[in-house]
Amino acid sequence: MKHIHIIGLGLIGGSFALAIRKAFPEVHISGFDKNDQHLEEAQYLGLIDEVSEKPSADTDIVLLATPVDVLPELSKKLLDEVNAETLIIDLGSTKATLCKHLSDHPKRGQFLAGHPIAGTEYSGPRAAKEDLLNRKVFIICEMEKTDVHLKGKAYELFEALNLKLRFMDPEEHDLHLAFVSHLSHISSFMLGKTVMDKMEDERHIFDMAGSGFASTVRLAKSSPEMWTPILKENKTHVLEALGCYIEKLKNLENSIKRDDFESVYRQLKEVGPIREIMDMD
Amino acid sequence: MKHIHIIGLGLIGGSFALAIRKAFPEVHISGFDKNDQHLEEAQYLGLIDEVSEKPSADTDIVLLATPVDVLPELSKKLLDEVNAETLIIDLGSTKATLCKHLSDHPKRGQFLAGHPIAGTEYSGPRAAKEDLLNRKVFIICEMEKTDVHLKGKAYELFEALNLKLRFMDPEEHDLHLAFVSHLSHISSFMLGKTVMDKMEDERHIFDMAGSGFASTVRLAKSSPEMWTPILKENKTHVLEALGCYIEKLKNLENSIKRDDFESVYRQLKEVGPIREIMDMD
Repeated sequence: MKHIHIIGLGLIGGSFALAIRKAFPEVHISGFDKNDQHLEEAQYLGLIDEVSEKPSADTDIVLLATPVDVLPELSKKLLDEVNAETLIIDLGSTKATLCKHLSDHPKRGQFLAGHPIAGTEYSGPRAAKEDLLNRKVFIICEMEKTDVHLKGKAYELFEALNLKLRFMDPEEHDLHLAFVSHLSHISSFMLGKTVMDKMEDERHIFDMAGSGFASTVRLAKSSPEMWTPILKENKTHVLEALGCYIEKLKNLENSIKRDDFESVYRQLKEVGPIREIMDMD
Repeated sequence: MKHIHIIGLGLIGGSFALAIRKAFPEVHISGFDKNDQHLEEAQYLGLIDEVSEKPSADTDIVLLATPVDVLPELSKKLLDEVNAETLIIDLGSTKATLCKHLSDHPKRGQFLAGHPIAGTEYSGPRAAKEDLLNRKVFIICEMEKTDVHLKGKAYELFEALNLKLRFMDPEEHDLHLAFVSHLSHISSFMLGKTVMDKMEDERHIFDMAGSGFASTVRLAKSSPEMWTPILKENKTHVLEALGCYIEKLKNLENSIKRDDFESVYRQLKEVGPIREIMDMD
């Protein structure tokens, strides 16, 4: 591995840069971000060695860490252009549209559809952390469609970065992520909005908010620029998850309205097993 | 201060016991919990020096850390019985019903309505932590109704425990807490329920859940025994907060359904100021 090119130098792209630098100090990292300020910051922070809009001919791996709506066209264009020994890996949070878009591409074998389950509520190059990816799950979709000899490069990278690989088909990925990630973000954003709208001009209200509120609303600090495209690309599954969630909330609301607190208790109690499940790790 | 009596030896009562022990090593702590196992654990863990269902005549302060539905009757009964120099402080998450219930009590001056904004998703004596209350906000309602000479005792305790005092009327307290605490718990419980119902028999799904999901669903581990009474006591305000929340979720759902992602973006973006507000601390 000699040269890695990263497009999108925010939280995820930047964290890959830092982790790669640590694992492969000799690798040359070039990169690009269409946000000028982010590009400057990425250089200043030492995330990349060189600014370059396109990967050069000797690039081993191109990592794509842009908002998901950009990925299908960008991936296609890059596949058209890159050398036969270059592998393109995307790191987006939705997979079905992208995989479908590339399915008939003659160079599909040079592409790997990935998704690191890692992040924070912050964004941009300054949010990048060297250990963000350490021991995190990395989901790979349609692994069988990537050329065997290029998979070697990918595995070398993933192993050095301490990623735990999981394999899944794109539809399954998008459905599951809608429930365990995209819905959490919606819930957090709208919770923040509810409190802000109600508590207008009453900033001291947040004084009364304990760690519980901070925890449930943390994701509301996430970037709308990243998250709007995710909700768009995964519309069907997101609507399914959101519909289920609203239904649960309305059931609880109805029980409270009817003063049926035995039912309220049962509804809360049923969530009990999540304690063991969430402590599994 | 010589003797403090604590009724309810779970997360909050137990944490007060530990903090008091540290701040006032010479104070005798007696206590009670109607859950036999919790009472035994509280002794074993050294939270209390003595088991006693009722405070003895020399008790300076009685702390009530039971579920909120028990508090009105329990407080009244204790007020009827205690000596003139004993102050009763409740630590419940709802205040209006309780304060109303005690408003005409001839010994109302010996009562102080308080609420520490502190907690974790765990419960019972084993969840108690010596530093849980350190530097946390402690809300006091109707402070003017507590006798001046007993307030001295209360201030001595609060100061030693490093609590930051805030004053508020009971209705205001309950309304605000519905939005910044009770709604967060509902959101978390129902989010956990949504994912568990959908992902039945697919435990590996939680493998794919990142720190974001863990954060939003953390409060779903809270005790239904504590939380059902809170939702009941604060029914009106909880329904208001929950109604607002469901409305925001439905607005977002509609925008997604209509493919109006400019509106989705705007709705997410509007939550932006919460970043500064939540980082204020």
